[in-house]
Amino acid sequence: MNVAVLGIGLIGGSIGLAVRQRAGARVCGYDPDEHVRAQALALGAIDTAAADVASAVHDADVVFVATPVSALPETVDLALREAPARAVVTDVGSTKRVVASARSDGRFIGGHPLAGAETAGVEHAREDLFAGSVWYLTPATGSAATAGVLYERLHRLLTALGARPTAIDAETHDRLLATVSHLPHALANLLVAQAASTLAQDGEGRVPAVGPSFRDATRVAGANSAIWTDIYLSNRDALIAAVDDFAARLSGLRAQLEAGDGAALTSWNEDARADRERLFGTAGAEHGTSELRVSVPNRPGVIAEIALSLGRAGVNILDMVLSPSPDNSQGVVALWIADGEDVVRAQELIAQLEFPVARA
Amino acid sequence: MNVAVLGIGLIGGSIGLAVRQRAGARVCGYDPDEHVRAQALALGAIDTAAADVASAVHDADVVFVATPVSALPETVDLALREAPARAVVTDVGSTKRVVASARSDGRFIGGHPLAGAETAGVEHAREDLFAGSVWYLTPATGSAATAGVLYERLHRLLTALGARPTAIDAETHDRLLATVSHLPHALANLLVAQAASTLAQDGEGRVPAVGPSFRDATRVAGANSAIWTDIYLSNRDALIAAVDDFAARLSGLRAQLEAGDGAALTSWNEDARADRERLFGTAGAEHGTSELRVSVPNRPGVIAEIALSLGRAGVNILDMVLSPSPDNSQGVVALWIADGEDVVRAQELIAQLEFPVARA
Repeated sequence: MNVAVLGIGLIGGSIGLAVRQRAGARVCGYDPDEHVRAQALALGAIDTAAADVASAVHDADVVFVATPVSALPETVDLALREAPARAVVTDVGSTKRVVASARSDGRFIGGHPLAGAETAGVEHAREDLFAGSVWYLTPATGSAATAGVLYERLHRLLTALGARPTAIDAETHDRLLATVSHLPHALANLLVAQAASTLAQDGEGRVPAVGPSFRDATRVAGANSAIWTDIYLSNRDALIAAVDDFAARLSGLRAQLEAGDGAALTSWNEDARADRERLFGTAGAEHGTSELRVSVPNRPGVIAEIALSLGRAGVNILDMVLSPSPDNSQGVVALWIADGEDVVRAQELIAQLEFPVARA
Repeated sequence: MNVAVLGIGLIGGSIGLAVRQRAGARVCGYDPDEHVRAQALALGAIDTAAADVASAVHDADVVFVATPVSALPETVDLALREAPARAVVTDVGSTKRVVASARSDGRFIGGHPLAGAETAGVEHAREDLFAGSVWYLTPATGSAATAGVLYERLHRLLTALGARPTAIDAETHDRLLATVSHLPHALANLLVAQAASTLAQDGEGRVPAVGPSFRDATRVAGANSAIWTDIYLSNRDALIAAVDDFAARLSGLRAQLEAGDGAALTSWNEDARADRERLFGTAGAEHGTSELRVSVPNRPGVIAEIALSLGRAGVNILDMVLSPSPDNSQGVVALWIADGEDVVRAQELIAQLEFPVARA
């Protein structure tokens, strides 16, 4: 298998290392910076360096676009134009609609590995960067539906890298990330600015050691601007909605404080405790895996529908294999799911999509 | 020295253990719960148990009031009524004005150790709970000014416990804590509630592993209600002011996002990075200590003025000794300051108060 990596920073470089070491595939890399290409070769992140996008992707089975967010759309377009018909093209951007919505090519599947954004540069690349991490994929179900065979190829490759590919639609992805990543980053910045101005006003220079709350809440303040300005901008409508939601909640708290209602504050606090326990609930023990075999018509979007349905329910697909029937009119998808409730759940969800499903 | 501890939970119990083991003083403890008293005796947190406040404090040199915040004012009043004239009475509440402002007795000095609030109960008490931690003291300078000899005794005892006593006025303390502790706790609760509702709406059950930002920002969500409802209520005016400040900053960010101004977002983010680095700047290495000797008139409030001035500047007083002149008309305060810039700074600050000061 030939893999192309466009943009060889921390993520692109780590993809190259992992693809070569864990999936045994050949990696051709392109980066606009000649020194970065040489460094990537020296580090073993790529097998060969290409001088432009076209020569990097011309024989690729899988193309990873790992440029900064602002350069993603044009690089994805270029890759789709130059890559062979058999190729699957994906990106690694932190927001998904901006890239996904404009593409009308069934070979493109948006992607977002939830891994290391704080140290930049190929010199920090690691072959285990994605091990155990969720890697969101946003397959399309509409007119430019994702071909099952391409989704399967990408899913299998990411699994080989140690990641946990999880299907999600682009809208949900961006709303989710606005709430659990972009908003916390923004709040950290606001909090640190407020504390700095309060302490300056009181003639205090440093934050007293008040326990972990402030330190934890502001740990990501001032995260790498080269990455984060792009993220804030590319997801700004979802982030503005999250800010508005947060402002309304803040105003509700203010009213509660004003009223001095201890019982209401206690119940608000207890709810938060319960929410947090639920959100971070320990995942069920994974003793083994079960294989589900699903009969599917051979039409675009089927695999995407299944992956999205399971992804939405939090069911993790450990591995998948697509086997077309000899006449190519239908096929069987084999899915491996961690043992436990997830398996029964997965069967029900697939049955709801009206595909015959059986435990192997 | 006789020490009384009123309210034997995590903090009261740890004070008892530390006073006995580190300061070699006798501890008499009172708690309304008979079982807690027995447990404290068994754990060695107190030498003797008293059946009421009066018998606990009647022969005390130092009284620690370590009840829940809501019971502090009345217990402090009772302790002041029953304690001998020579005693210094202090509390350990997380907000200071509510207790400090109503007391008009020079024997009372508000206190707030910045140590462990999450596990409750004497069974979690530790003799090293305060080691290396700031312990705020709010001596009074007005009509009921704190007597220097009492401040000195308390300061020395806390230093023996391993704490770093730091003088601060009650107003500043409460505004500071609202910003760097109470607000982050409140934001954590709001964030977790918002994420729970967003994820429920999207059919997602758990927070994806989006890196540390959300986990860190919400680590203190739903902190012990038995403690935190009281804290929110007792400091609610300062917290409301902090909430208003935060809401205004949030609204400013919203406008920036709306405008889509990347340069402004970058500069906002870079400022946050600089603020955080300044706030958490590494403290200067402490190679040794210097002794400053200050000549002071023997009038109430002098020690408080000096301690507040140094505390405001972030200068840590490692130890202090007060020596009255034979005729009691004036005295010398010896202060030990960590070597480095702090010492010069401390000399300047004391000189500004127009007290003669020399390096010993």
